[in-house]
Amino acid sequence: MGTESRLSRMEQQFAFIKEIDGVKKIGRQSYLKDGSRKENDAEHSWHLAMMALLMGEYANDTIDLLRVISMVLVHDIVELDAGDTYAYDEAGNATKRERELAAADRIFHILPEDQAEYLNDLWEEFEENITPESKFAHTLDNIQPMMLNDATDGKAWKEHQVKLSQIMKRQEKTKDGSVSLWEYARENFLERNLESGVIIKD
Amino acid sequence: MGTESRLSRMEQQFAFIKEIDGVKKIGRQSYLKDGSRKENDAEHSWHLAMMALLMGEYANDTIDLLRVISMVLVHDIVELDAGDTYAYDEAGNATKRERELAAADRIFHILPEDQAEYLNDLWEEFEENITPESKFAHTLDNIQPMMLNDATDGKAWKEHQVKLSQIMKRQEKTKDGSVSLWEYARENFLERNLESGVIIKD
Repeated sequence: MGTESRLSRMEQQFAFIKEIDGVKKIGRQSYLKDGSRKENDAEHSWHLAMMALLMGEYANDTIDLLRVISMVLVHDIVELDAGDTYAYDEAGNATKRERELAAADRIFHILPEDQAEYLNDLWEEFEENITPESKFAHTLDNIQPMMLNDATDGKAWKEHQVKLSQIMKRQEKTKDGSVSLWEYARENFLERNLESGVIIKD
Repeated sequence: MGTESRLSRMEQQFAFIKEIDGVKKIGRQSYLKDGSRKENDAEHSWHLAMMALLMGEYANDTIDLLRVISMVLVHDIVELDAGDTYAYDEAGNATKRERELAAADRIFHILPEDQAEYLNDLWEEFEENITPESKFAHTLDNIQPMMLNDATDGKAWKEHQVKLSQIMKRQEKTKDGSVSLWEYARENFLERNLESGVIIKD
């Protein structure tokens, strides 16, 4: 920032593209639908982008689809340095913001300044969760792991002994992006796992 | 197609989103940059989408960025049934088209008819490689594995004893999407692996 770079614009861009290859190794807590292993951030981000492409019609507000897709593609890149913080890890979530800010500063600035700002803006918009696009991106980001949890009979929920109150707190804003997707997810992915006792009622 | 489905529109969409979770298990021949394992189609597609987001400025022609990104997100889904055909597998490539057509017919039609057509159109546009968007998508699809090969000192090239003539045939149309990206890739990813003998001169 401010200092002249000896790398050309295209060299900086390829350096970034090579750097984010590491996103393929950031593990998440959600299992693939067949339960064979957990997914990683690159796979998760691709899955969310496909959901955005096909489910934009359910957004509560009019959305710019390119912006939603760009946001979900980018939203987990900071985890390259900050790591994935599990939704129900209280200690981890207390320091998450600070770790992710430092990560964004390093990683996005591998790019030319204009593109560093562009990705930082996308990521901050996602984090602030105020615009229709970011609210819808959060809806997808919250529902996708519920779908995978249901597909594996709650494998990750069981591992972490997740309680209903934790899920409902985590899902508090899911409806803000799409009421209809949230209702579908609640009816189809949560209720049967509550009835079966996989999710602990508290 | 033509027959009434008992599933609601949203059920069909979620069935498709769940089905394509399997794309995370379709192995490719390219290694991650650290050589630890090969990448899969979901990771590859995310990586291409990030390249599209940041490198559209190098396209030879004006492109619709949302269409390019949508195309790279979707382009390998047919491999769910058809499998990944390595670029230098002649026998596999002889039957590839037939296998992929059958796959597209089954997989895309899990979706409501309008969206099945939409994804099929995106995939066919990619395959035909005529529009500026599809040419640029191919440029990215060809350059990303070259970048990963170079990062691993040609690990996959060595495994398959790849010859220069094979690469040049495979890369014949890479410049059609972006002359400047092709030139960068040739200079930075190919030449030193030719000099070192990793790529076999023939």
